[in-house]
Amino acid sequence: MQFQTRIGKSTEDNIQVHGYDLAEELIGNITLADMAFLGAKHRIPTENESKMLNAILVAICEHGFTPSSLSTRLTYLGAPEAVQAAVAAGLLGAGTVYFGAMEYVAEMLQKAYAEYGDERSTEELASTIIKDRKEKGLQLPGLGHHIHKVVDPRTGKLFQIAEETGFLGKHSLLLLEMHRQFCESKGKKITLNVVGAIGAIMSDMGMDYRIVKSFAVASRAVGLVAHLVEDMERGRKDSIAQQVFKYVEDNTDYRG
Amino acid sequence: MQFQTRIGKSTEDNIQVHGYDLAEELIGNITLADMAFLGAKHRIPTENESKMLNAILVAICEHGFTPSSLSTRLTYLGAPEAVQAAVAAGLLGAGTVYFGAMEYVAEMLQKAYAEYGDERSTEELASTIIKDRKEKGLQLPGLGHHIHKVVDPRTGKLFQIAEETGFLGKHSLLLLEMHRQFCESKGKKITLNVVGAIGAIMSDMGMDYRIVKSFAVASRAVGLVAHLVEDMERGRKDSIAQQVFKYVEDNTDYRG
Amino acid sequence: MQFQTRIGKSTEDNIQVHGYDLAEELIGNITLADMAFLGAKHRIPTENESKMLNAILVAICEHGFTPSSLSTRLTYLGAPEAVQAAVAAGLLGAGTVYFGAMEYVAEMLQKAYAEYGDERSTEELASTIIKDRKEKGLQLPGLGHHIHKVVDPRTGKLFQIAEETGFLGKHSLLLLEMHRQFCESKGKKITLNVVGAIGAIMSDMGMDYRIVKSFAVASRAVGLVAHLVEDMERGRKDSIAQQVFKYVEDNTDYRG
Amino acid sequence: MQFQTRIGKSTEDNIQVHGYDLAEELIGNITLADMAFLGAKHRIPTENESKMLNAILVAICEHGFTPSSLSTRLTYLGAPEAVQAAVAAGLLGAGTVYFGAMEYVAEMLQKAYAEYGDERSTEELASTIIKDRKEKGLQLPGLGHHIHKVVDPRTGKLFQIAEETGFLGKHSLLLLEMHRQFCESKGKKITLNVVGAIGAIMSDMGMDYRIVKSFAVASRAVGLVAHLVEDMERGRKDSIAQQVFKYVEDNTDYRG
Repeated sequence: MQFQTRIGKSTEDNIQVHGYDLAEELIGNITLADMAFLGAKHRIPTENESKMLNAILVAICEHGFTPSSLSTRLTYLGAPEAVQAAVAAGLLGAGTVYFGAMEYVAEMLQKAYAEYGDERSTEELASTIIKDRKEKGLQLPGLGHHIHKVVDPRTGKLFQIAEETGFLGKHSLLLLEMHRQFCESKGKKITLNVVGAIGAIMSDMGMDYRIVKSFAVASRAVGLVAHLVEDMERGRKDSIAQQVFKYVEDNTDYRG
Repeated sequence: MQFQTRIGKSTEDNIQVHGYDLAEELIGNITLADMAFLGAKHRIPTENESKMLNAILVAICEHGFTPSSLSTRLTYLGAPEAVQAAVAAGLLGAGTVYFGAMEYVAEMLQKAYAEYGDERSTEELASTIIKDRKEKGLQLPGLGHHIHKVVDPRTGKLFQIAEETGFLGKHSLLLLEMHRQFCESKGKKITLNVVGAIGAIMSDMGMDYRIVKSFAVASRAVGLVAHLVEDMERGRKDSIAQQVFKYVEDNTDYRG
Repeated sequence: MQFQTRIGKSTEDNIQVHGYDLAEELIGNITLADMAFLGAKHRIPTENESKMLNAILVAICEHGFTPSSLSTRLTYLGAPEAVQAAVAAGLLGAGTVYFGAMEYVAEMLQKAYAEYGDERSTEELASTIIKDRKEKGLQLPGLGHHIHKVVDPRTGKLFQIAEETGFLGKHSLLLLEMHRQFCESKGKKITLNVVGAIGAIMSDMGMDYRIVKSFAVASRAVGLVAHLVEDMERGRKDSIAQQVFKYVEDNTDYRG
Repeated sequence: MQFQTRIGKSTEDNIQVHGYDLAEELIGNITLADMAFLGAKHRIPTENESKMLNAILVAICEHGFTPSSLSTRLTYLGAPEAVQAAVAAGLLGAGTVYFGAMEYVAEMLQKAYAEYGDERSTEELASTIIKDRKEKGLQLPGLGHHIHKVVDPRTGKLFQIAEETGFLGKHSLLLLEMHRQFCESKGKKITLNVVGAIGAIMSDMGMDYRIVKSFAVASRAVGLVAHLVEDMERGRKDSIAQQVFKYVEDNTDYRG
């Protein structure tokens, strides 16, 4: 056979997914988020893994109007025949600007341990990484937020659940220490944001840094459903999309 | 204020989503699938609703290679810088052909009760609807499957969970009766497929037929992560995308 | 060979496209729009066909801020790493609401001649079609415009060029007569809009109604480049996308 | 007025685009490709600019089956209701792997002159840039092609037209010299590919390197129409998309 996959295959009376019987072992036994875990790890998550992952995906799923959710609504306005396209349009804006830090934090932390090993103290490793990045002119990812100027309310909650579920591991502790040192050096409190926290906790869950962003994208797809539903319920004329477009149309100054 | 929403809003130290405090009430307490429910119903699901919805979304999330999951992989091959675009490309194929029946079944069942009320017996209503559609030249949606020729293994499991959770209601019973009458009239067993079952059960959960497809699209986004991860792990050269493309390239006959 | 195509194939020192040598026969000899024609007709357009098609695609390419061009800008705001995704996001809104009429007009006109033949007078055929559609509760596509209330400035220009190039044929004349009869019956001038005109003229160019919308989508992709460039030149902070999002954020009333 | 744009605006009887009257000055007078130029430069191109740009966009528009055109076809298979989504899906794969070099070449050449000025000889500048990049571990973009191992047939043709139209300027000459030195140092002929040539020529046309990729994306949208049309004409069952999917389905080995 030419194409080999661990993901799944259907026969006339059976569907296998990641080594499990979909109907007998998965449906009714696991959550939607666990399917994402299964895709990444090829096994069902433990109860703690499931709890942690659901918490992360709930945290990143929704927080009102964003450029991405506006795109979903504007797309539905023009193409109500294809809700899949409206969801897809919203996902397309889930790029480096909003979700990039999740990957960069995970990469920074995973490479820190890969390069320097586990022997240094967290404090020493944190200061080494901060110094390294400063010399290379690299910013520290995962810090700062344009609305949550001092505290991102999701960050503390996620670390609390990480502690309860056993995922407050070395990557999280390193990020927390880096954050502490960074604030100290600046003499003020700078937000440790939710995507930073997720990058660290997913590292402690054993997720390769290259895949953490995909989880966030999937979660965002779930969140975008609410935006579609709201504009469907309002009806085309009173939809947020129509209101936003009308406002722009009425307030545009053309200087050709 | 110009734009009114029930979805959410962030302030400096708080995020509200659908009337709940995201950090205090949602993160750690609900599953990712519940966020979709929240978007549709503006309230947290009950335990049974959450169980039923997770079962539905797990059922529709994944079953191996599809045109949609191939698109995700082919897109990642050309644009590894943007995993969000690869997920979006896969979603774009989640259109009427594969997911349409979910909406059409829900619409058929919801309109049946809207038009004829609750007074007829399920048998009578089923035969009325079948007759109506035959006269209008409309097919019965939710029946048949190109692989699962007789039984779709997900259908029975979902109806079983619907019974356990209290969602085997009038819409599901009507669809089951229509299926029974249809097979009887044809003199053979024809599959009641998973998207048909979902259209019926989501109707019994009180979901408007216009939004059921959006849930499936969100679930598919979660499933597509596994395809991305598999091709990431294989590496560009050995990725399924590269193998498929190479096979097509090597077996193309051009007749300009 | 398994996969047969008329589109093209590359060998080590040659690229064939639709039966032509790309480097020797096409590059430098035809316009971009002609490539779309080549894809639909498998031959290079005549000079008149090229002139007509370029005129059509220029007409539909751009007219300032639309929901679709806002989506492109909002997507670029979140994912500047992938300009292809920003263009794609804008295309996703080019659905039935804005471009649908193009296909519906072409379908209506092509089916009119397919069903009733060429023997009736244009006047008689027009009134037959209007009557048919009225009885079926179908609207007349291609009429009306939310800004151009009386005259769409592109319509007359396109019909003028159609006359000059020999494409003011029976489909265009039928649509013009339908428009005349419809305005007469309403006792007022109702716009014959640009997508209606294009549906008719492309029918007179021999294009199947199922493909006319694809041309418009391709043209829109060209137009979206200007929106990307403008927001790139303004810079992230002063981009229209950022301004629109900021306005929405500052004027949102959340009622959870 | 809040939102200022140079792109366009519609009033009841007029459409202005980039300072021109769309109906009176553009439709019938310029080509589709010129609309892209207008978006980038806010003026109508000269005859030579139009010829050069059309040649470039024709060169990059199409060359048969690619991962991107397969995605377009696979998406149409699942969502025939939305041709815009099928085109968009194809565009999403037009990322760094296939089109990136266009931007990287333009950036390399434009920054070379920005940094070192115009005073050095082309030979000296070429060897400086090659040395610089080697020291930084950066590859030379625009070289090599997996099919056209020695000569990309589009490259010579584009440089020939660039010479005829006056756009074989310093950026093109620098790239050609870098290519010459690179082949000399390797002792063999390595392809100067079409995206490299386009990056250089568009630099000589005065296009900022950040926007050159957008042009290619728009051109690709035009090319994808042909793939849609071919699968429409073949019909669902005989479509290339269906054949490819069927082949993959029949040749998959699942190892869960």
